[in-house]
Amino acid sequence: MKFPKRGVNELSILSELRSKYCLDAKHDLGEVLGSMTTKPLDVAIRAFEIFWRSNLNDPYTFPGSSIIEREVIEALADLYECNDCSGLITTGGSESNLTALYIIRELGFSTVGVPKSAHFSVFKACKLLKLNIYELDLDKDFRVSIGSVKEALDKGVRAFIFTAGTTELGLIDPIDKLGRVINEYSGLIHVDAAYAGFVIPFLKELGLKVPKVSFSNPAVRSLCVDGHKMGLTPIPNSALILRPPELIKYVEFPARYMPLNIQRGLLGTRTAGSAAALYAVIKYLGIEGFTEVVKYVMGLLKYLIKRLREEDFSVPVEPDVPIVCIEVKDPDKYLKELAKRRLFVYKCSLIKGVRVVIMPHLSRYDLDRFIEALKNVRREVG
Amino acid sequence: MKFPKRGVNELSILSELRSKYCLDAKHDLGEVLGSMTTKPLDVAIRAFEIFWRSNLNDPYTFPGSSIIEREVIEALADLYECNDCSGLITTGGSESNLTALYIIRELGFSTVGVPKSAHFSVFKACKLLKLNIYELDLDKDFRVSIGSVKEALDKGVRAFIFTAGTTELGLIDPIDKLGRVINEYSGLIHVDAAYAGFVIPFLKELGLKVPKVSFSNPAVRSLCVDGHKMGLTPIPNSALILRPPELIKYVEFPARYMPLNIQRGLLGTRTAGSAAALYAVIKYLGIEGFTEVVKYVMGLLKYLIKRLREEDFSVPVEPDVPIVCIEVKDPDKYLKELAKRRLFVYKCSLIKGVRVVIMPHLSRYDLDRFIEALKNVRREVG
Repeated sequence: MKFPKRGVNELSILSELRSKYCLDAKHDLGEVLGSMTTKPLDVAIRAFEIFWRSNLNDPYTFPGSSIIEREVIEALADLYECNDCSGLITTGGSESNLTALYIIRELGFSTVGVPKSAHFSVFKACKLLKLNIYELDLDKDFRVSIGSVKEALDKGVRAFIFTAGTTELGLIDPIDKLGRVINEYSGLIHVDAAYAGFVIPFLKELGLKVPKVSFSNPAVRSLCVDGHKMGLTPIPNSALILRPPELIKYVEFPARYMPLNIQRGLLGTRTAGSAAALYAVIKYLGIEGFTEVVKYVMGLLKYLIKRLREEDFSVPVEPDVPIVCIEVKDPDKYLKELAKRRLFVYKCSLIKGVRVVIMPHLSRYDLDRFIEALKNVRREVG
Repeated sequence: MKFPKRGVNELSILSELRSKYCLDAKHDLGEVLGSMTTKPLDVAIRAFEIFWRSNLNDPYTFPGSSIIEREVIEALADLYECNDCSGLITTGGSESNLTALYIIRELGFSTVGVPKSAHFSVFKACKLLKLNIYELDLDKDFRVSIGSVKEALDKGVRAFIFTAGTTELGLIDPIDKLGRVINEYSGLIHVDAAYAGFVIPFLKELGLKVPKVSFSNPAVRSLCVDGHKMGLTPIPNSALILRPPELIKYVEFPARYMPLNIQRGLLGTRTAGSAAALYAVIKYLGIEGFTEVVKYVMGLLKYLIKRLREEDFSVPVEPDVPIVCIEVKDPDKYLKELAKRRLFVYKCSLIKGVRVVIMPHLSRYDLDRFIEALKNVRREVG
């Protein structure tokens, strides 16, 4: 559009925006099955609105916001068994991974060991930062290969990124085992738990056996987890936890005009609404509430896999967290046909298929509707 | 805090958050005089809320959001006289500058000419990207020195960043003149108009003489402007405009699991609320409305400078846009004393002083109150 000469009234603008919003997939209607976004909790939205205009980049002018951020980081450090960590709220997993990798580079590492299954934001960040990537192979179960990590260590690689909840297959790399090996070589690990960081700690509450993901592992130096995924906050929201706390100094930059003479983080102005929203969710749910959420999505996961197999769909991987890859011959055709029915999934590429992320806005009804659609598509395209 | 075991009720959380918010400076109360943040327009908040959960990173699942983003970029390209541009909405000026500099690096430039007065995000981005900085001197009027740019060109520098509204002194670099020189050398310019991008185009409507900032200058290849500053939207919000449109390809990254196989931008998930909010403000205000806003802040600027001089404060620079640097001996002392009175300003460093940014939430009453406080502080600390 042209930049308008004259303004128009608010209601006509909002009504126009609503009509455009009709085109977007709706979480509420069970249409969003691939994107890791969801419907935020009401308490998170209310909290966000209180701090909307405060800038986390300026703790001098907005000290209340800064306290909230610190408390959130403390709570997450506690959840991940770190008693001496620092951290900051970022806009999302991509920024958190970029920040962690920047710190790794500034610590003097020039090469990072990255599993083939890592999120693309890791590959992108390495390109940005001119970090060399040592690509790590996967085992037959699609988790990073311990042998491959040992080879990397032999070749001098000392910094690694592992994933707790891989984007495509919902798997947790064997971080605990790897940490012990890497620690012997005085190496370090950044854990990308963007999706499953608010799932994994609560799985053990459900009595499920999962590989341990925490700072109890001495090689783990940073970990990120997204609020706007399973943390049920509005976008933007991610937390990056750092150990030792002094690592934060690497992302403190001189800013002569600012009251504290420094500025923290790779970006600038950040809404304090993000910190407030995550604070609210943590207080509102607590361990018990999060466990309920995780129980719900894990229940749906089990249901979906069972129903898919009953209908003779191939689900070759048993995921650790609620992400399902359904093997199909031509994923792009499936995406197109499903989108026509207003069901929006993503793809898996390690195994050729379509992929569903089970977020808390979904229900058994939504999954049944999806399976029916999938059967129809199979009939049409094979 | 510890990660709580049990959740607590919504109202007690919100009431606790509100009490923390009391510590933050309030735009409404005229307390925020340094931060470039302001109170967003109501229509922007309503628009944001409609698109809150849609992800601009996924135009397949959220096509309505994608249309809104495209329309905003088109409108801004139109405002800045570009008839063949592309662009994207980012989280703020820091990300926009980082993105522009990344594209510059990928185009093959290894050194960027940066004026001493550039925003620190530019220096930070160069460090991140391992770009060499050729620091450009300032003229006696604190704008980038044309002689220094010519010297840089002689030494082989071909990529430059200039500022339209410097953060410390509110000055516009002579981009038009510089563009002609740089164009002769087939160089390029990124314009950082983060703060004043929604001020400068409307100054000429007020009959004020300002240096031309637009894509009519053939050397200008990118320009960024922040919605969450003078664009009156909630945080996060910045627009990056690129010419030729194909430049956007440099920030399209492979993402095998996403429906379109690519992902755009240096970060990942982005709320479509940002695009919707900026769309709403552009439609709501139009050129006429923005001109009124700019008339209002420029009026306050004139008033503040006049009143300061009447009270024998030194205002050594005549700003182009509403940022005032008041020379004082010990800026940190002033900041501290003013903060005690709940007046939060920033500093200038090129000239030692305290600095006020006039945003639309301020009034003559707020400025009078500020001047009275400033006089009291002067009496106390000299």
